[in-house]
Amino acid sequence: MALIVQKFGGTSVADPEKIKAVARRVIECGKQDNQMVVVLSAMSGETNRFVDLAHQMQAIPDPREMDVLLSSGEQVTIALFAMAAKEAGYDCVSLLGDQVKIQTDTMHTKARIKSINAELITGHLNSGKIVVVAGFQGVTEKGDITTLGRGGSDTTAVALAAALKADQCEIFTDVDGVYTTDPNICTSARKIDRITYDEMLELASLGAKVLDIRSVGLAKRYKVPLHVRSTFTDTEGTWVVEEDKIMESMLVSGVTYNKNEARITFSKIPDTPGIASKIFIPISDAGIIVDMIIQNTRAGEMTDMTFTVPRTDYEMAMKIVEKTAKEVGAESFSGDPHIAKVSVVGVGMRNHSGIATTMFHILSRENINIMMISTSEIKISCVIEEKYTELAVRALHDAFELAKENLPIGE
Amino acid sequence: MALIVQKFGGTSVADPEKIKAVARRVIECGKQDNQMVVVLSAMSGETNRFVDLAHQMQAIPDPREMDVLLSSGEQVTIALFAMAAKEAGYDCVSLLGDQVKIQTDTMHTKARIKSINAELITGHLNSGKIVVVAGFQGVTEKGDITTLGRGGSDTTAVALAAALKADQCEIFTDVDGVYTTDPNICTSARKIDRITYDEMLELASLGAKVLDIRSVGLAKRYKVPLHVRSTFTDTEGTWVVEEDKIMESMLVSGVTYNKNEARITFSKIPDTPGIASKIFIPISDAGIIVDMIIQNTRAGEMTDMTFTVPRTDYEMAMKIVEKTAKEVGAESFSGDPHIAKVSVVGVGMRNHSGIATTMFHILSRENINIMMISTSEIKISCVIEEKYTELAVRALHDAFELAKENLPIGE
Repeated sequence: MALIVQKFGGTSVADPEKIKAVARRVIECGKQDNQMVVVLSAMSGETNRFVDLAHQMQAIPDPREMDVLLSSGEQVTIALFAMAAKEAGYDCVSLLGDQVKIQTDTMHTKARIKSINAELITGHLNSGKIVVVAGFQGVTEKGDITTLGRGGSDTTAVALAAALKADQCEIFTDVDGVYTTDPNICTSARKIDRITYDEMLELASLGAKVLDIRSVGLAKRYKVPLHVRSTFTDTEGTWVVEEDKIMESMLVSGVTYNKNEARITFSKIPDTPGIASKIFIPISDAGIIVDMIIQNTRAGEMTDMTFTVPRTDYEMAMKIVEKTAKEVGAESFSGDPHIAKVSVVGVGMRNHSGIATTMFHILSRENINIMMISTSEIKISCVIEEKYTELAVRALHDAFELAKENLPIGE
Repeated sequence: MALIVQKFGGTSVADPEKIKAVARRVIECGKQDNQMVVVLSAMSGETNRFVDLAHQMQAIPDPREMDVLLSSGEQVTIALFAMAAKEAGYDCVSLLGDQVKIQTDTMHTKARIKSINAELITGHLNSGKIVVVAGFQGVTEKGDITTLGRGGSDTTAVALAAALKADQCEIFTDVDGVYTTDPNICTSARKIDRITYDEMLELASLGAKVLDIRSVGLAKRYKVPLHVRSTFTDTEGTWVVEEDKIMESMLVSGVTYNKNEARITFSKIPDTPGIASKIFIPISDAGIIVDMIIQNTRAGEMTDMTFTVPRTDYEMAMKIVEKTAKEVGAESFSGDPHIAKVSVVGVGMRNHSGIATTMFHILSRENINIMMISTSEIKISCVIEEKYTELAVRALHDAFELAKENLPIGE
């Protein structure tokens, strides 16, 4: 008998009929000699409705009360699910975050899970019940309700799977898996059958649409096999697993892009110790997260410093930079919100050279200027002009032959 | 400094603007050197929406899951209220039934409160916060969510007032108090300023619209002064208090009616011991609550037995009666769903005779036939044909001069 955790997102439980369909699906899986734990999000639209209500009450809604408000959404879906399962003849019990004792820190609206008490769930499972748990929510030591932030239900599912030592954790969503790139801009994008946790983490901007990145990190740490698949079909989706579970790694697994950043450059600043901290402390004090940082050495004692920030923080960052530029004696500074970051990801590149060269060559062939480069062990990212994003993604997807199935390394 | 519990019903918190208005009202009261505890219902319409959703899931929705579902409604309003209060500059904290530890029995959808832990609330009040509590909900010893049934938020408010030893409990609603009779059928109906707990209990059918009867019983037991008043005006409503708090009792406080009953009569049954239990055991086994029972003795060894049941149970009761009639050897049986019970209520009648006589006289004068009579220490009820209800109420309201203010006994 296997223990399976299944998570269904908001679009999968958007109305009574869909909740019933989900219940049928879970029961079907349970009948195949599996113990079932189900994690549900709020009905799609509910969270937006609550956020809207909250903003009618308070300019900046109180985070503790926001969590009380938001967590009611999952409470509704788990109760309805339990009813549907019971109507179909299966015993089922709903549990809220505080009932499962999903204990979190006190960071309201973006709390992190500290521990889960698996005892109550195990008891219900052993008495033959389907257990349906409210996703996205937890409780502090003092008994205040918390929520886990964006994608929190995925995190709940993986954390439960880890705590219960589940055999697998299935994330049901409205797409049928993780693709080699965004199918909306590249028609030859192909669904990936298996991918490593690390690759999935790097494919953040692709994955964000189907799988919360935080939950991937959690799955990696606890070695929880993840299966991302569609609520609306029976076909297999994408398995996210340990590297040794994949026989033949692809050289490159996917091409991803991110249009949510902006570039800022200081030109000709004195290349003295401590210059970087003078630039970045005021920015981080403002709560702005810097992604890439590149420092070029010029001839003489001058240097250039370029970095990227979230596009939504661009205006704020530029105001800070204006002040800092004077303080550090920069000759000038400039910014560009119309950039994009294009990345190729693959564990195969650890042992294979030439991926970067190919990437640069392809971009150059398409007359796309590379503004910044950064690399990790399994990813190469280039910042380019935003307008070339789609062209770059398609050219790279072609060049690395991602449309072909099973292209193992070395062949 | 006084401690005041204020409860606002669903129509009072029906939308964001109304919730803000309620918050302003509570804050205003708090500024007058009062500690404030607020109990809220779900937004009006929400409970019906949930019940409808539940019935789409399960023919007979599971009671435990129903409570999980329903209790989410109050969770929304208390969070929104707390935000509104904070926006207005007052510190406020929302608490759910399980956070306050409103411990109940396990009778889902109609649980009864066993105990309340006042400690958490007292702590928040002493640190200067307004405390807003979700009405209608509690938690079992094992941690399951329960709801208190119809009018449950009133019960929450009174129970909290009792546990906190509050100075008063104000029930805000969409009418401005308890009336001498239904203003919809008697234009001269007058708002009652003060009424005893016992009278309020007897005025059930009037009071049900403004105040849950269970909460009145609770208020009586713990001597909690209740104030029933309108959310939408500042005028005083009706105080429900101990008898010794009312200087001059009215002879009759109100005239009430109930159209929700039906009459059933057995004619000519053998007047032998045990006959009543033979008739009523099958009815109570079917979960039907019998209100009035009257047995007339006929000449000889025969008797007639008449009783009333809720009109919704009439068909079911008649089927049972058909069977019982044969078993007990009744000559015949008959039923009438078109009856009404008209009652006059007043603590004054304890010490004054003639109230019943006046009532019978007035009904007779209007050519209204009395089918059944029952009396309690402070109430006289007559069952009449339904079509005469309004006529009877108006005539009795007139006869006892209820339109006049302050008519003390003996003048």
